[in-house]
Parts: sequence; structure tokens; C-alpha cells
Amino acid sequence: MIDYVRDPKAIYAQSFATVRGEAALDRFAADEAELAVRLIHACGMVDVAETLVAAPGVVAAARAALASGAPVICDCRMVAGGVIRRGLPGNEVVTAIDDPRVPDLARTIGNTRSAAATELLADRLGGAVVAIGNAPTALFRLLELLDEGADMPAAIFGFPVGFVGAAESKAELAAHPRGVPFATLPGRRGGSAMAAAAVNAAALGLRGDGT
Amino acid sequence: MIDYVRDPKAIYAQSFATVRGEAALDRFAADEAELAVRLIHACGMVDVAETLVAAPGVVAAARAALASGAPVICDCRMVAGGVIRRGLPGNEVVTAIDDPRVPDLARTIGNTRSAAATELLADRLGGAVVAIGNAPTALFRLLELLDEGADMPAAIFGFPVGFVGAAESKAELAAHPRGVPFATLPGRRGGSAMAAAAVNAAALGLRGDGT
Repeated sequence: MIDYVRDPKAIYAQSFATVRGEAALDRFAADEAELAVRLIHACGMVDVAETLVAAPGVVAAARAALASGAPVICDCRMVAGGVIRRGLPGNEVVTAIDDPRVPDLARTIGNTRSAAATELLADRLGGAVVAIGNAPTALFRLLELLDEGADMPAAIFGFPVGFVGAAESKAELAAHPRGVPFATLPGRRGGSAMAAAAVNAAALGLRGDGT
Repeated sequence: MIDYVRDPKAIYAQSFATVRGEAALDRFAADEAELAVRLIHACGMVDVAETLVAAPGVVAAARAALASGAPVICDCRMVAGGVIRRGLPGNEVVTAIDDPRVPDLARTIGNTRSAAATELLADRLGGAVVAIGNAPTALFRLLELLDEGADMPAAIFGFPVGFVGAAESKAELAAHPRGVPFATLPGRRGGSAMAAAAVNAAALGLRGDGT
């Protein structure tokens, strides 16, 4: 047998202790610090705390929405797959990326399938927690839908990743959040694990087990 | 409307051109360079090319296995969710993490649920493509199962992430791969997106559409 830590509680405790010990969390309020911790835990990079932008109150806003049964709207299957269902009081976790109408709608609007999937959920945005972990075009289209009059989500966790549009879409969110509480990581880094971790951080305490 | 790139083909082309332009790929053979490109595309970090360890031939070994119908064994739902099914010739994409026997088995073996899930698939490892993007204990347990006589996978894509065991399990894989072709990213970084991207890189060309 190889020598390694097998006890899940020990792994969990050591992991979070390491993150809290190494990450620069002082500039955050308590809820947003916890969000930073969960994001770092998801990606293994403590310097995320240095560039994370988290609007004060975004975690509380997302938590209140989740507590009231708001849906979690995701841009892709991986984000939806990373949302811990047992941490939620039964909220629906939704992505439209597999909706059969998506390919045609994408062609019609001249945009990506991710943008089309976002558009298909336009009438469900009001009060929802939106988690974007893959497609910059999903975040861009979300912001456009708000400009076009869609109801405001309770919170936007904007963590698209990559080399075309990721930095730009997150800069647009941070500069003009359209009145919606948000968190985002500027630049190219992001991903489904971070987007899901943000939702999971907002769900902390809702089921009373502290995880 | 916001000004951004909406055309999926343009996004795709610009993204990969940026990665190829910025990443240090010279030390890799062609297949492994493509693997590096796909990993970088998935995480937004070009410096992944500097530390990636990819055994020569690992991509060809995984591709041959996938072409012959081998299953893709994943440690979690997010990895499974990130494997692009349309790129595969019908291979089964498997994770046992939701198997109802997992919690009891984890207690019995004194290990995590991820390790228990790996153990439940011990008799399916032979010739499989194994993709680990979350749990260090899944990778450790996989290596132990090989030491205990389990049949050898065709390839191991070892990308667990985090602060306890991730660096250690990947170092063990890189130092003692038990004869199995592998790729891994030393250190804390990793994740489901990378593990899935590795499988998707291995699947390139199998369906003839180049994506």
C-alpha cells in the first residue's frame, strides 16, 4: 500500500487549512472570503484570491435565492455536474445546452450554442443564480439579455475560461454588472469547477451540515 | 449589443492559434503537443506546457484503445460530463461515484468515496482509458489496484487537483507508472476539465471531423 491520507475528513480539514493559511483573504468580508476559499480549493491555486472580484453581498444574495428555491442556471453540463445537490434544498439545476432547439437557434442568432442555450432560459433568469464556467459567449449573451429587458438574476457567478472572450466578458461583467450582484475572476482563468464551487459556497449552511 | 466574437469557428481558430503561439511546445512530439494544446485550451494557462509530463506514445495508446471501443473510466461526474461523446465511436464513459455501494465500501476500506468508486471498477481497468480529474485518492487507489494485480489500462490521464494528495499522487504516477502510458500535471493544479480534455485530445480524428 502507498502511504497517503485516506480519511475524507482529514483531507477536507487539511485542504481548507492550507488554503486559509496561504491565501490572502484579508480584503474580503466573511462570506466572500469563504467564496474565495472554495474557489481556490476547486482549482489548487491560492493566487486566485489576489484577483477575484466579488461584489459585497453576492454570496448572501445567492444564498437567499437558493434558500427560496431559485433555480441554478448553468452554461454547461460540467457546471451542473459540479453543483452538490445534497447541499441544496431541492433547487432545480438547469442547463439548456442539450436542448434540441439550440443548434437552430445558434444559427438564427449568429452566435454559439452556449449563447443560444442562455437565450432559451431568458424567461427563467429572474431571481435565479447563474453560474457560467465555460463559454464567454454565454456570459456576453446573458448581459445582452439583461440589456434587452430580461428579469435580473439574484447573482451571477461568471467564470468562463479561455483565450477568446473570457477576459473580455468578465471585464464587461465587472465594469457593468447591470445591477446584479456578481463574482468573477478577471483574465483567462476560470472553469466549470470554479463556477460550481461558487454555487456550492453560496449553498453553505442551507442544509445545516457545514459542507 | 456588445461587441464580441460570436462565430464558433472563429472562436475555436483564434483560441487554438493563441495557445500555439504562446505555449512552449517544442519539447513534445506531435501527439503530445496536441494534448498540451487541448489541456491549455481547457484551463486558460499556457504555462501548463512547461510542467506537463506526457509519456511518449500515451496519446497514440489512448487513441488506439478508444478506436477499439475501450471504456473511458472517470473518477467523477464532471470528467464524464466533459468527455465529448460525438468525438467517440460509441465508447462507454463510466464513473462509479454514484454507485449505491460506494459509501459502505469507502467505510470498509477506510478510504474516500472516490477511492471506493475506483475499486468498484477494478475489473474494468484492463485496456481502458482512465481519466482522473478530481480526487487524488482515486489515483492513489488506481495505482494500488495495479500493484494488487489489476489488469493494465491502456492509458492513465492523471489530473487530480488540490492541496492534499494531488501533488503526491501525480508524483507517484510519474515516478512509477506501473508500465502504463500516462500523462499528468505535477503539483496542485489539475481538474476535471483537463482530464476530459485529455480524453478528447486522444479522440481527435476518430470521428474524422477534426474536432
